[in-house]
Amino acid sequence: MPKQERDDTKGIKNKKAGDFPEWYAEIVQKAGLADYAPIAGCMVIKPYGYAIWENIKKWFDSRIKETGHRNAYFPLFIPESFLKKEAEHFSGFTPEVAFIDKKEETEAGEDRYALRPTSETIIYDSYSKWIRSWRDLPLLLNQWCNIVRWETKATKLFLRTREFLWQEGHTVHRTEKEADREVMYILNLYKELAETLLAIPVITGKKTENEKFAGALYTTSIEALMPDGKALQMGTSHNLGQNFSKPFNIKFKDRDEKEKYAWQTSWGFSTRLIGAIAMVHGDDRGLVLPPRIAPIQIVIIPIIFEKNKSRVLAEGEKIRKELEGDFSVEFDRRDEYSPGWKFNEWEMLGVPLRIEIGPADIKKKQAVLVRRDTGEKKTIKRNQLKKEAEKMLEAVQKNLFRKAKKFLTDSTVSAKTFEEFKEAIENKKMVKANWCGDSGCEESIKEETAATIRVIPFRGEKAKGKCVHCAAKAKHVVYFARQY
Amino acid sequence: MPKQERDDTKGIKNKKAGDFPEWYAEIVQKAGLADYAPIAGCMVIKPYGYAIWENIKKWFDSRIKETGHRNAYFPLFIPESFLKKEAEHFSGFTPEVAFIDKKEETEAGEDRYALRPTSETIIYDSYSKWIRSWRDLPLLLNQWCNIVRWETKATKLFLRTREFLWQEGHTVHRTEKEADREVMYILNLYKELAETLLAIPVITGKKTENEKFAGALYTTSIEALMPDGKALQMGTSHNLGQNFSKPFNIKFKDRDEKEKYAWQTSWGFSTRLIGAIAMVHGDDRGLVLPPRIAPIQIVIIPIIFEKNKSRVLAEGEKIRKELEGDFSVEFDRRDEYSPGWKFNEWEMLGVPLRIEIGPADIKKKQAVLVRRDTGEKKTIKRNQLKKEAEKMLEAVQKNLFRKAKKFLTDSTVSAKTFEEFKEAIENKKMVKANWCGDSGCEESIKEETAATIRVIPFRGEKAKGKCVHCAAKAKHVVYFARQY
Repeated sequence: MPKQERDDTKGIKNKKAGDFPEWYAEIVQKAGLADYAPIAGCMVIKPYGYAIWENIKKWFDSRIKETGHRNAYFPLFIPESFLKKEAEHFSGFTPEVAFIDKKEETEAGEDRYALRPTSETIIYDSYSKWIRSWRDLPLLLNQWCNIVRWETKATKLFLRTREFLWQEGHTVHRTEKEADREVMYILNLYKELAETLLAIPVITGKKTENEKFAGALYTTSIEALMPDGKALQMGTSHNLGQNFSKPFNIKFKDRDEKEKYAWQTSWGFSTRLIGAIAMVHGDDRGLVLPPRIAPIQIVIIPIIFEKNKSRVLAEGEKIRKELEGDFSVEFDRRDEYSPGWKFNEWEMLGVPLRIEIGPADIKKKQAVLVRRDTGEKKTIKRNQLKKEAEKMLEAVQKNLFRKAKKFLTDSTVSAKTFEEFKEAIENKKMVKANWCGDSGCEESIKEETAATIRVIPFRGEKAKGKCVHCAAKAKHVVYFARQY
Repeated sequence: MPKQERDDTKGIKNKKAGDFPEWYAEIVQKAGLADYAPIAGCMVIKPYGYAIWENIKKWFDSRIKETGHRNAYFPLFIPESFLKKEAEHFSGFTPEVAFIDKKEETEAGEDRYALRPTSETIIYDSYSKWIRSWRDLPLLLNQWCNIVRWETKATKLFLRTREFLWQEGHTVHRTEKEADREVMYILNLYKELAETLLAIPVITGKKTENEKFAGALYTTSIEALMPDGKALQMGTSHNLGQNFSKPFNIKFKDRDEKEKYAWQTSWGFSTRLIGAIAMVHGDDRGLVLPPRIAPIQIVIIPIIFEKNKSRVLAEGEKIRKELEGDFSVEFDRRDEYSPGWKFNEWEMLGVPLRIEIGPADIKKKQAVLVRRDTGEKKTIKRNQLKKEAEKMLEAVQKNLFRKAKKFLTDSTVSAKTFEEFKEAIENKKMVKANWCGDSGCEESIKEETAATIRVIPFRGEKAKGKCVHCAAKAKHVVYFARQY
């Protein structure tokens, strides 16, 4: 049987610098991250995409467990009457809520069941039963689950779909200060996840009143800039204050024997992170995965000629065994494809490091390493393989972050005037500018430019002078961008 | 502050040998496994219950991954038209299907969206797009997700709820034989999970035509007997034959260049396993957890008197550190509860092993170990602690299985006549009896006794003589019982 040579129908047709949305949709599907589902606006997360999610989950799950957080599972269904208990929360979410065809007959009439768009209300109903005393606090729970938001805007694989997966943490504390600390502890974990695992640099800060989570006292966020100049919210951590504990009656008897309303936080990130990885690091040949979350970190490709076949396969297998304890390794011993075909395929999948091994390499006691991010080839001594592979993977991880960081820095500009501001937004920049602090002014800027305030940075610059839009006295220096 | 002594409102009021359903509901809630949700028929899986689920997941997930299975995630929503494609499947599930208030307008009219009662149809729609060649086979996928079945029968925490969690595997093969092998591979894994982790002995075999999965060629099952004499189906593995590949058009070009319909399997177990653990091993003081799936395997209780407090706490901490690499350990250093109160609490939670350490023990270089299952106390040398703890945990694991196995054996009787049969069923036995193989006869037995055929055992006894009910020639020796 002749070997399958390079198959051009399999390559990536769109260019990242060309039609970015088409390029994105193409690499996500061709690399096997996700597929469109037969339900409009929904997706199928394919095994390769799901394996990235599992790696993200594993890291985050073990980190929060170290600090006493535990997982639980609350119902998919939320009585509509619960959603209505916190007015701001209700109006923030109802446009996107789907209901089922079953309902409860109550004294007050019918109560429909919503599919959770987020679980504050159903969880806090349980909390009100479980919490009695300061001894029950802090209560630190998290759940990994599916979420339904019946989007009416155009959907996009991973970034906006009617169903997605996420984690949502819901904690209860004795004091406001404790809740503040929890919010920042989680936000810093999110930043660490984004930067050290996903190699995506983020800006952190508080959301404005307009942009905060419906029902929160305040919202903090990590924000990344995508290659098309749009910001992506990668995770949010909210201090809910007593906004939910009051309507849901979450009270505890404190050490001083007084009954008090509890302080709460909630926080989450979703499978959209997988989309961010594809957008930020991908190139015209496909995905480029950061080694720390790559399902396959190293692929070994045997360069086979008929007469040396068994020897090369034996050597490849030996290498696989050497590496598999320390790395996630795949040895592509398929006979029906040529090495060139395999190179293309594994490059499309974004595997960070390729090892080529052929008869000449065996003879010279060497191996060839090829980096996915730069394409750099390096011939190394066979007995240095593990060390060199480890070094190169670290270099890939660092380089991806450095490149993304440079892009973020280069794409962030300051604007003094509204003319400069508009031009920068049109040029797909993240814009640092003075803002007066007024929600109406923020709303006008959004209407005129489609840009919103991504965050008011923590420990940001002191505002001097006037608001970039209304010329009132500036209160904050903030980051603006268009967003996903 | 005086210490909190034994609190009788916290103890288990019902007896296992008394009102079994009430006892079950009580231990599930008081031990923190699950709670009723405010939606009728739904449950909240509390952190302690969820931690058991995580342990089960971890074991099973790593086992199926070793054999090349991968996880993915398919939509919660299934177009009604998909459910209808396999007629038997549709009629088997529709009574319990919930739909959402969103639909698709199609040429053929409206297509409603169901919440998955099981995912064959939505998954196989994707498979029909992904599979082209024998090179794409076998396709071995699994998903961990929530399932919705709007039960009309009385619900019961873990055992029958309108939403539950499960894993569902969906594999595609070139040949029927390969599919057969997969079915049995998974069934044997389920048996291993039940018997060696959960310490619950099971009977394995094939389901009858009446009892098989709607749409399957045949269904295999692992069945356990609960203390109230009802059988519980703990996991099922189906050979779907080509029953779905034909309506869903899952075809592949084989090595011989011919297009063929694929052979498929599906298999699953759910959070009901947690209920089985509680029922089988629990006692009048609460849960008794098998060490291999216990979230906490060992609890250390300091026996504190005011003057030795710091020394005892230091020793407890030392023990915790010694054990924590090998076991999941909790050191209960709370000051506000007495040792007696703590004993009760950890017994209710079913922690398999308790270590007591007090000033006298420190002096004598010893520690006291107490088994949850038998209550046996053993004073051991301090320097033998780790070895003794390991031995005792193994003994608990074995003893739980042995006890459950004895119950199963003692509760399984043979019936020659239908009188004997009815009496045995009334006496809450599992009944081994001759059966003619006729579905109508099976149906009559069910109507008269509420007992169904749990399985036709693999390599069962050869049937001699007449059917226990209709007196026609016997075809199989099968197991009957009432069921959950």
